[in-house]
Amino acid sequence: MGPVPRTLELFYDVLSPYSWLGFEVLCRYQHLWNVQLQLRPCLFKEILKESGNKPPLVPRKAQYMASDLRLLKQHFQVPIHMPKDFFPTVLRKGSVSAMHFLTAVNMEQPEMLEKVSRELWMRIWSRDEDITEPGSILAAAEKAGLAAEQARGLLEKISTAPVKNQLRETIEAACKYGAFGVPVTVVHMDGQTHMLFGSDRLELLAHLLGEKWMGPAPPGVSAQI
Amino acid sequence: MGPVPRTLELFYDVLSPYSWLGFEVLCRYQHLWNVQLQLRPCLFKEILKESGNKPPLVPRKAQYMASDLRLLKQHFQVPIHMPKDFFPTVLRKGSVSAMHFLTAVNMEQPEMLEKVSRELWMRIWSRDEDITEPGSILAAAEKAGLAAEQARGLLEKISTAPVKNQLRETIEAACKYGAFGVPVTVVHMDGQTHMLFGSDRLELLAHLLGEKWMGPAPPGVSAQI
Repeated sequence: MGPVPRTLELFYDVLSPYSWLGFEVLCRYQHLWNVQLQLRPCLFKEILKESGNKPPLVPRKAQYMASDLRLLKQHFQVPIHMPKDFFPTVLRKGSVSAMHFLTAVNMEQPEMLEKVSRELWMRIWSRDEDITEPGSILAAAEKAGLAAEQARGLLEKISTAPVKNQLRETIEAACKYGAFGVPVTVVHMDGQTHMLFGSDRLELLAHLLGEKWMGPAPPGVSAQI
Repeated sequence: MGPVPRTLELFYDVLSPYSWLGFEVLCRYQHLWNVQLQLRPCLFKEILKESGNKPPLVPRKAQYMASDLRLLKQHFQVPIHMPKDFFPTVLRKGSVSAMHFLTAVNMEQPEMLEKVSRELWMRIWSRDEDITEPGSILAAAEKAGLAAEQARGLLEKISTAPVKNQLRETIEAACKYGAFGVPVTVVHMDGQTHMLFGSDRLELLAHLLGEKWMGPAPPGVSAQI
């Protein structure tokens, strides 16, 4: 029997492109490191609200984000592409239904969570497609491999108390760890808990775990995208 | 004759701990990569002002910064230590004289800029010592190897027009590249310019340059600290 795997919780929202980058890297490394990855869908806007974090809209910062994502796309090998009207439209429309849907997937068919999350990101952050309409969410779910009937069944549950409560609990858990944005990776190891913010602490995560860092796209791990 | 080295400009302020991390990594890699590093002392607060960036003071963010720096300290091998009263006192006191002093050093004894910058960071961000009083700046300069008389001569120049103008020009150059904070690394290569923000785009920088990334503390490079 090998050493007990360390648990990594990843709190994310498909509205966040940096969440996508962190998600893909952890999905790749979960097969290489002695870790157990727990995907924790939550709501970016609620975390901002509860932490009192109101980042100002700085034009230069928005411009930088576009060029940053263009460079990170190649380096991370994630087909990220900035939606045309991200700040005025996409960000405002939000991801409330999508994140409730992922919460329902996690409760009923957790083995599908990774794929459905990825297909939602592919819509919003690669092909500039909607993720707020029921038809958009169903299309992502079916593309991920859920049967149409299953997907509709899960979609019907997004406004039920158990799903709402579960999403609320996940947001509260992230806040308890000190989150003020997403993604947040929480490392449980040696009786300690470390919270890492963003998608640019992954080499630091490897250092903490005593595992080997081979860049955001480690060779030999076939891309899931 | 080998290929022409690419130029990297590093815009920094000793008030910023993430500037220190970026500075040390680039000082190490300048000996390993085919690059020419230009250190560009500037003023963090002026860049915030000119870009309209007013980050809110979020208690959880301040807490995270303390734990983030504790982890990065080991990983980067930089003896960074959060000053006791950073947000209420140190940040408010600022770095105006220190950054004017570094500008004067850069104009008159550029070969000393790296060492004097490091000694100022050692004061504020390692030993929780003042950097605003003339005596503090002189102590850092002497520790870096400047003769007492030279250091006093440079200190006398910090309120002269040439030094003030040079610092203003450097701030404007950073803004022209799109800066909204520090550190900022500007890469000049193949007729293109890329602006990278923060101390967590250094692996991306290696990727851009086509150079090898060996972590923030590459083996075989003796630490200057």
